[in-house]
Amino acid sequence: MSDNKTGLTGFEILKSCFIGCEAGYDESDIVIFGAPFDGTVTFRPGSRFAPMSMRAESIGLETYSPYQNKDLEDMKIYDAGDLDLPFGDTSRALQKIAGIERYIIKAGKRPVMIGGEHLVSLPAIEEALKAYPDLHIIHFDAHTDLRDEYLGEKLSHANVIRRVWDLVGDGRIHQFGIRSGTREEFEWADSGHTKLHRYTTKGIEETVKELSGVPVYVTIDLDVLDPSIFPGTGTPEAGGVSFMELENALIALSGLDIKAADVVELSPHYDASGVSTAVACKVLRELLLVMG
Amino acid sequence: MSDNKTGLTGFEILKSCFIGCEAGYDESDIVIFGAPFDGTVTFRPGSRFAPMSMRAESIGLETYSPYQNKDLEDMKIYDAGDLDLPFGDTSRALQKIAGIERYIIKAGKRPVMIGGEHLVSLPAIEEALKAYPDLHIIHFDAHTDLRDEYLGEKLSHANVIRRVWDLVGDGRIHQFGIRSGTREEFEWADSGHTKLHRYTTKGIEETVKELSGVPVYVTIDLDVLDPSIFPGTGTPEAGGVSFMELENALIALSGLDIKAADVVELSPHYDASGVSTAVACKVLRELLLVMG
Amino acid sequence: MSDNKTGLTGFEILKSCFIGCEAGYDESDIVIFGAPFDGTVTFRPGSRFAPMSMRAESIGLETYSPYQNKDLEDMKIYDAGDLDLPFGDTSRALQKIAGIERYIIKAGKRPVMIGGEHLVSLPAIEEALKAYPDLHIIHFDAHTDLRDEYLGEKLSHANVIRRVWDLVGDGRIHQFGIRSGTREEFEWADSGHTKLHRYTTKGIEETVKELSGVPVYVTIDLDVLDPSIFPGTGTPEAGGVSFMELENALIALSGLDIKAADVVELSPHYDASGVSTAVACKVLRELLLVMG
Amino acid sequence: MSDNKTGLTGFEILKSCFIGCEAGYDESDIVIFGAPFDGTVTFRPGSRFAPMSMRAESIGLETYSPYQNKDLEDMKIYDAGDLDLPFGDTSRALQKIAGIERYIIKAGKRPVMIGGEHLVSLPAIEEALKAYPDLHIIHFDAHTDLRDEYLGEKLSHANVIRRVWDLVGDGRIHQFGIRSGTREEFEWADSGHTKLHRYTTKGIEETVKELSGVPVYVTIDLDVLDPSIFPGTGTPEAGGVSFMELENALIALSGLDIKAADVVELSPHYDASGVSTAVACKVLRELLLVMG
Amino acid sequence: MSDNKTGLTGFEILKSCFIGCEAGYDESDIVIFGAPFDGTVTFRPGSRFAPMSMRAESIGLETYSPYQNKDLEDMKIYDAGDLDLPFGDTSRALQKIAGIERYIIKAGKRPVMIGGEHLVSLPAIEEALKAYPDLHIIHFDAHTDLRDEYLGEKLSHANVIRRVWDLVGDGRIHQFGIRSGTREEFEWADSGHTKLHRYTTKGIEETVKELSGVPVYVTIDLDVLDPSIFPGTGTPEAGGVSFMELENALIALSGLDIKAADVVELSPHYDASGVSTAVACKVLRELLLVMG
Amino acid sequence: MSDNKTGLTGFEILKSCFIGCEAGYDESDIVIFGAPFDGTVTFRPGSRFAPMSMRAESIGLETYSPYQNKDLEDMKIYDAGDLDLPFGDTSRALQKIAGIERYIIKAGKRPVMIGGEHLVSLPAIEEALKAYPDLHIIHFDAHTDLRDEYLGEKLSHANVIRRVWDLVGDGRIHQFGIRSGTREEFEWADSGHTKLHRYTTKGIEETVKELSGVPVYVTIDLDVLDPSIFPGTGTPEAGGVSFMELENALIALSGLDIKAADVVELSPHYDASGVSTAVACKVLRELLLVMG
Repeated sequence: MSDNKTGLTGFEILKSCFIGCEAGYDESDIVIFGAPFDGTVTFRPGSRFAPMSMRAESIGLETYSPYQNKDLEDMKIYDAGDLDLPFGDTSRALQKIAGIERYIIKAGKRPVMIGGEHLVSLPAIEEALKAYPDLHIIHFDAHTDLRDEYLGEKLSHANVIRRVWDLVGDGRIHQFGIRSGTREEFEWADSGHTKLHRYTTKGIEETVKELSGVPVYVTIDLDVLDPSIFPGTGTPEAGGVSFMELENALIALSGLDIKAADVVELSPHYDASGVSTAVACKVLRELLLVMG
Repeated sequence: MSDNKTGLTGFEILKSCFIGCEAGYDESDIVIFGAPFDGTVTFRPGSRFAPMSMRAESIGLETYSPYQNKDLEDMKIYDAGDLDLPFGDTSRALQKIAGIERYIIKAGKRPVMIGGEHLVSLPAIEEALKAYPDLHIIHFDAHTDLRDEYLGEKLSHANVIRRVWDLVGDGRIHQFGIRSGTREEFEWADSGHTKLHRYTTKGIEETVKELSGVPVYVTIDLDVLDPSIFPGTGTPEAGGVSFMELENALIALSGLDIKAADVVELSPHYDASGVSTAVACKVLRELLLVMG
Repeated sequence: MSDNKTGLTGFEILKSCFIGCEAGYDESDIVIFGAPFDGTVTFRPGSRFAPMSMRAESIGLETYSPYQNKDLEDMKIYDAGDLDLPFGDTSRALQKIAGIERYIIKAGKRPVMIGGEHLVSLPAIEEALKAYPDLHIIHFDAHTDLRDEYLGEKLSHANVIRRVWDLVGDGRIHQFGIRSGTREEFEWADSGHTKLHRYTTKGIEETVKELSGVPVYVTIDLDVLDPSIFPGTGTPEAGGVSFMELENALIALSGLDIKAADVVELSPHYDASGVSTAVACKVLRELLLVMG
Repeated sequence: MSDNKTGLTGFEILKSCFIGCEAGYDESDIVIFGAPFDGTVTFRPGSRFAPMSMRAESIGLETYSPYQNKDLEDMKIYDAGDLDLPFGDTSRALQKIAGIERYIIKAGKRPVMIGGEHLVSLPAIEEALKAYPDLHIIHFDAHTDLRDEYLGEKLSHANVIRRVWDLVGDGRIHQFGIRSGTREEFEWADSGHTKLHRYTTKGIEETVKELSGVPVYVTIDLDVLDPSIFPGTGTPEAGGVSFMELENALIALSGLDIKAADVVELSPHYDASGVSTAVACKVLRELLLVMG
Repeated sequence: MSDNKTGLTGFEILKSCFIGCEAGYDESDIVIFGAPFDGTVTFRPGSRFAPMSMRAESIGLETYSPYQNKDLEDMKIYDAGDLDLPFGDTSRALQKIAGIERYIIKAGKRPVMIGGEHLVSLPAIEEALKAYPDLHIIHFDAHTDLRDEYLGEKLSHANVIRRVWDLVGDGRIHQFGIRSGTREEFEWADSGHTKLHRYTTKGIEETVKELSGVPVYVTIDLDVLDPSIFPGTGTPEAGGVSFMELENALIALSGLDIKAADVVELSPHYDASGVSTAVACKVLRELLLVMG
Repeated sequence: MSDNKTGLTGFEILKSCFIGCEAGYDESDIVIFGAPFDGTVTFRPGSRFAPMSMRAESIGLETYSPYQNKDLEDMKIYDAGDLDLPFGDTSRALQKIAGIERYIIKAGKRPVMIGGEHLVSLPAIEEALKAYPDLHIIHFDAHTDLRDEYLGEKLSHANVIRRVWDLVGDGRIHQFGIRSGTREEFEWADSGHTKLHRYTTKGIEETVKELSGVPVYVTIDLDVLDPSIFPGTGTPEAGGVSFMELENALIALSGLDIKAADVVELSPHYDASGVSTAVACKVLRELLLVMG
């Protein structure tokens, strides 16, 4: 967020944007924004607090990545702040997200959204799909998210990828790290609907080769990480990938044509140590640098 | 919840109902149930966890009240457990609450609901009103809850009492402990729509006299208590009533014809000490004994 | 716990049993129950809260395991609730556990106990031993638990396996993951009293081969897991096994004749993130499925 | 604890004793020690951590009291550290407490014990009674502690004062602040067995007059304080006394011949803010100054 | 903070300023800014996090005060954000604070600073004194803060008011709520150096009368509040004033000519419930409205 | 700390020293002491609480290491307690640390310091260097700590190793586990100033061979560990080494001539589970045993 402090100049004021994302909107190539919505979460809410926490805690992070030998300060990223989203009216919240995604994409920029629960990815992917009809989705997650209905609902964090499939059809969703779901979901995926990779990110290189030149949306449900390193999430699921495994998978995406992306499902209050928020910040930094 | 453990008898098993509420449904006079819903909460959710926490922590409470010299064990109360409510679809959740309230009232029993956010009171009051058309509402709260709209929503924890007014009209809502709202809400109330008592429970005796013989619904938003004694709530508001002030106000209600009631807005996770849950349990005990 | 709600039917009420364990007692093959006792813990108590927490949090878990391709809903498991155990009188508490274990075994069913501190395994193993005199014990733990006395006590969480050895003698206790104890304990074990495997679960396949056809009791002190993934325990000990290592060790047990089992030493309050409880639930699910 | 650091002198080393209690044993008039035992607590343990926490946090407290215009540094108090007490064997733990109380009293000094659960007061009072047969007990508490049995136990935190009555008989126990118990306990007390003052410390001046010249034991269960100011305790009970009310009651005791005393039932881990520990330290300071 | 989002307009973005403080700098009458410094705190640091927490949590507060019947939205307040202050170099940090205070005062505006530890008040008062040589200081605090040296330091949170006295001399510091300090500090104050009011805010009306027409600086160390309502502070001191007592004292200041002010010593992390931060926000709102 | 309890003997009193470090000063070979200073930490302070927490929690640790088959009880280690260090005056704090280091080294003993922030290593290394001019430094850390200035400061936790380089020059600092810093820091190190090993401890065996016979100082910034196992630190950085990797690296140091050492940057309050403190204790035990 570029703050305009006319009249009060010459003082060193702490930034309120994500670290290293200090470009103005017009000059920016990438626009990040927060979608603090967790209204369909049945079990443990709190991802609404993620964007605010990540900005505040990003001060503990360097802008430079030794893994990629790149620096956020060499990129042009604008931090638009957080959308003001209504609770209790899911469809109106999703429309607002769709609106800003569309606006950013039309301006020739690439949106990177900070959730919020995973359902916020649905309007973002839908808008990207309108702009790039042959879009593929790379999906990191602990959970299949492929139920058709969840507690009678069609629209929820537990069936968001199924709704994406409604839009893109078979073979265009590439899932990694999946280790939880119903038997029906796993069988449905395995029958050809999605390319589901169990437990790890193994296979990412093949996927990257296959998607060379194709527009890609990357959605990272941070609970793909093992809860040892990422306890701050609504439905922690043991047996996940380590940070370095996710890091290497992200680096593997470097050559892809990533049009838009998101990181979702940080619930900062469930991890009082602040580690989960710090990890989310580092994942976002690496993702942004991969897109750079 | 009366558990049927056919085949495994003779062992001392810990109860899973609220302490002292071990009557069977048929013999019961009062039925308590949980409405674990907080789907419209914008700021800090978590009241969905209240009924479960209160049952578990009620083991630390005596069934006897020295204040009233009464004992829950001398009453007939059935604990029906918690409704399974959907998130992301507010109206369906409210319908389910309406259903069980109606069922209990039709059976000639008195429902006492454990929220959940304050919006759960709306269907409960609506059902009580159908059965008792001249119902008055006694409302303890820190907040006016009288907005007509809140962030564009008509149905939310911030305007539940306004929606109740839509049903009952002027002069039948008696508010106590109110210390937060917009100027418009206070002025609207003071212009004759509700009987709003600021900051304290002063005036409760007059109200009780006025309502002699009239059917009454009591809704206790626990944040009427000062956050020093009740920090575990979504929007803590300093300057509230002490436990003993609320206790004395409840005792003042003893002669009233209370047809139904609720206690709402405990968010147990915000108070790791467990005190807020213990206080909520004690308020519920005292309320039940007042109804006995 | 199968609840009998005569008179109040037709409402969707949240379950209070461990997820997927909804069989009635008579039809059940496996009976789970809680032993919420931590009375001999010197350092950090709290495992008394484990069974209650696990039931409540199990709602976040799927009943299906992709690792085993099995589902709890295809089994017949009865959840008996938690024993009401006295504190300050260790021997009376242990007698109560012995009583229910005996009852379940005599009924031809298999008991699975949720601790509580590790000492609760002693009466459970003793009862299983009475029914199956050639019983072997598979023991996952960070700690040897082989002291003869601990702070002058013969009966404590720190010498429970030594007391089991008093009952079964040399060569019938198979320990995995052990990484903490006195020099005397390690030397005593290595001199032939127990089969102690240091640090990891390596060797589990050989043990399984050796125990083919033999009745087995499996006791899982959850602190065998690395504290990174399981911080919620009284004496966390770094250098433990990962979830996937324990998972694979459990799957290795699939062919064994497991007569009874337990999972112990979750102290949920020490891990406010809820991850430890979620991990304990997942371990219990996998253990139950291995027994299915 | 006076530390003997021969050989390493001339450095400013932080003290590990309670603030202002730096006298040597021989010169001391009062001896404080910790009894970190909570083995009979059924509901929420943790008072075992109180003495250690209080020493560490006492650094935030001044030694001077403006209320009494006295200073701990003008007294001679020795801090003996904490007893090493066994868990799982209640009677052995109580014997160890009795031993040190007896030793201190025989040396003509006055013991002040930091609990631990309330049961630790029993051996302390018993030893004081042996030395001063006409001892009266002043008891601050939220709970009656007068059950004859609790969950089948004769020795527990819930019946400690009943056990004291077994020793001293009618009329010599003066209870203040009591607001929780069974109907039977209140009736038993009111029938002449103890002098029970409900809810507040009102009546303390009369008691002080009555006990002029009589040897007195003061036992302060800190849960007499309202949980708003003292949430860190096992069974918080709303409606308690404020700090200033307790402070004034303690000052009222100034003229009494206090032979021994204790403060019990701080469970520091239940109050992460540290306020409960700070309050316990301040109560201990004021109690010590009253005895000075 | 007025954000300049050129190019990305038409979206509802969440504000990052304190609620109701959305004026531009030029039009503003009052300027609030944060001084996140706690570098001299010996015991428990953390007040550096206060300004950021207060902004984020202010969303839970109404802009309207029923106590004063005033609304922040009717005032012109600019939120300048937080100074970027160095740690480990106290004097450089204080210089930066002095700089912004001077700038604001010279612009004819009134600065209101959010601490940080109490030492940040020193440069703020010094600058106000330069502009208004007959300045008086109204000081709410639990602690005297009058030591001449603290652990060998002349500049620390424990002697800030003594340093202020070095500047203003006798009779111009009016202290309220004081309940902790050394005997020397109390005696030094009482000998005529400051006007020290013990324990409560009694006497505030007389002070207000006396200071009619005189320029005043108001410094509120929030630990003047009882730790029951304000646990989130470094050195909680029981026996403090209630929120309503502080509220009434603030309202009493309404007629004064308040030139500058601060609220200090919130350490939000020590109170995970968020109540302390909510209370600090409400105190700041009331203070701003008093100045309006 | 050897406590001198003349006059009060014959009672089992809990130790207040680090477990197994009960030797007297004169007989000791190694002296441990705490340096509770975190005054230059910009982001999240709290390492000042580390030494006290580690002593208290060390009771949960065995003195015997199965990894090394050694026991602290076979060594002669004296625990000197914690230095009383001033805040707000960095250089005075560092002088005090230098003083005790010098004293211990001159006595022919080996100092092992418990931090505090990493800056405390500077005076310790400086003193060791005076005594052993050809000293090499083995440095475990997540961060380079090689900035020349940090926020305008020359002396801070973020540039401590750069200040060490000022003293020792090129090639004598061996860094392991480094994964965070600016591009400039990495390039500066790689240009020959330090021997920087990225991400892991790989290369430690070569370093050990190279340093055979050379005096060595070992400084362990515990944040070299992955935050999954060590969340309790100021700037957690994902992608770190596991406990077993650090353990094996320490064992690799066994043959070296370690003259002095430290473990720094535990911030216990950020990890309420206590695991970080337990890990720090275990690292310290292993380090001490390696030096034995």
